[in-house]
Amino acid sequence: MIAVLAGGVGAAKFLRGLVDVADPASITVIGNTADDEEFLGLHVSPDLDTVVYTLADVVDPETGWGIANDTYTTLEQAEKLGQSTWFKLGDKDIATHLLRTRLLREGKTLSEATQAVVEAFGVKCRLLPMTDDRIRTIVTTDQGDVSFQEYFVHRRQKDDVRALRFEGAEDARPAPGVLEALQDADAIIIAPSNPLVSIGPILAVPGIRDALVATSAKVAAISPIIGGRALKGPADRMLTSLGHESSAIGVAKLYADILDVLVLDSEDAGLASDIEALDIDAVVTNTIMRDAESRAALAEATLKSIS
Amino acid sequence: MIAVLAGGVGAAKFLRGLVDVADPASITVIGNTADDEEFLGLHVSPDLDTVVYTLADVVDPETGWGIANDTYTTLEQAEKLGQSTWFKLGDKDIATHLLRTRLLREGKTLSEATQAVVEAFGVKCRLLPMTDDRIRTIVTTDQGDVSFQEYFVHRRQKDDVRALRFEGAEDARPAPGVLEALQDADAIIIAPSNPLVSIGPILAVPGIRDALVATSAKVAAISPIIGGRALKGPADRMLTSLGHESSAIGVAKLYADILDVLVLDSEDAGLASDIEALDIDAVVTNTIMRDAESRAALAEATLKSIS
Repeated sequence: MIAVLAGGVGAAKFLRGLVDVADPASITVIGNTADDEEFLGLHVSPDLDTVVYTLADVVDPETGWGIANDTYTTLEQAEKLGQSTWFKLGDKDIATHLLRTRLLREGKTLSEATQAVVEAFGVKCRLLPMTDDRIRTIVTTDQGDVSFQEYFVHRRQKDDVRALRFEGAEDARPAPGVLEALQDADAIIIAPSNPLVSIGPILAVPGIRDALVATSAKVAAISPIIGGRALKGPADRMLTSLGHESSAIGVAKLYADILDVLVLDSEDAGLASDIEALDIDAVVTNTIMRDAESRAALAEATLKSIS
Repeated sequence: MIAVLAGGVGAAKFLRGLVDVADPASITVIGNTADDEEFLGLHVSPDLDTVVYTLADVVDPETGWGIANDTYTTLEQAEKLGQSTWFKLGDKDIATHLLRTRLLREGKTLSEATQAVVEAFGVKCRLLPMTDDRIRTIVTTDQGDVSFQEYFVHRRQKDDVRALRFEGAEDARPAPGVLEALQDADAIIIAPSNPLVSIGPILAVPGIRDALVATSAKVAAISPIIGGRALKGPADRMLTSLGHESSAIGVAKLYADILDVLVLDSEDAGLASDIEALDIDAVVTNTIMRDAESRAALAEATLKSIS
């Protein structure tokens, strides 16, 4: 049994490789929901959807999120009606959010709604939200506090991040099955996601970090930072502005208490000894997922490092 | 000031004519909401939307409802996801329902949500739902009780209607402004809508029928039955199966306590004396609204009969 902590695009690509080299039924994905937000009255779970769309092979290959060849008729009409439309919901995509939102309104939990979405898309992995409770990432910028999507999408990550907090985390509980999946796992993987805003909220759910510390299973992370830079998104600038090193070492230190293995890119081979000095095994390989082969190879190398 | 009781397509066409011959700001439309239903978790108000789309000149001219040139991407995707999709919501149309549903979820009343929709579409009339409370038309068929949309859309009106009831009507109150609009009106019009399932629910809201009986303003209805048949929809069969006459006389009798004038089609000129015998003035004119001219002429003739 494999448990994977997952954010959005990077995690989804990794998982798409993982299901090619491991039985999907053996994989439980624990997804970040601190980026969830309501748009047009719809409950959107961007990270969960990115995982589902990618695993269902319907994801937009250009962006890595959303559904391929989607249209924006409803959104354009909503704009004409004076609604706030900076978050780009496609017409097909909206069907997912309608399903989730309806189930939540009917009193279902986010876990149950997620399960319905996963089944509707025919995804074979188990996908659990980190919590059924409401946790929201609040980003402190020089312009004040904003929600994660406000920072990430609306303001296009232009602000320096001065602080992060996960509102609601203190009182949240892991979703049903999350701790069990971590306890039962033979191997645990932290996907190549932003350690601060994608994996950070998952680890902030009371009980999850403790379970990772306590587990006898090996825990591997794939560094999302290569040559000091994030392949995608603002992780590098965010690490720096929050006082961390923007490097695989910075990532290793954030996970130091829970990590057995850090998978880092060949470009960062020179950092391996510094990683090892943190009592973390360094596995050096190609971590850039350009295609199906490189995704599967990364998944294979990661699995091998912890089995 | 003019108050109009309105159902769906027929009422909307009449209103489109009325705003060409009277100041829209002088018109308050009181719309049927007993056909409202949730589809894909969205609160749909079919009759209110038909009025709005028609007055905003965006209605589909083929069907008389929905938005012209709409697409069905979200609905088709919802179907792929296993959702019930017999009610045809277009992509543009969905933007309306998202707006309404969001406002209702935020605690706004249906009146307030309707006002927002009206403003978003730039409609100049006032449009009030008959009530902010929940009333639902239940249609008794030989197959059992079904909701109005189930009967009307899903089962394509194939069942004989054995009984009608308006669930929730007893405890409902007229929406804010409804009784005032009727009291302040110089003329009141019952649009050419199904008297049983479009106008019937409005009259079933406690206080509305009494206000129409009590008013000193003249009240005119336009018969939706011409030559014994409904131009559109199942009104004729429904009148017959529920023990009424499927004719302008049947319509007149249903409104006998509130009507000063019945506008009937030239084809039914022979019924005028029977109408007059009910102490209702009969105005004979062309009531078939084929185009802008005939719509405006019907509105003009109706206004003239009660001013």
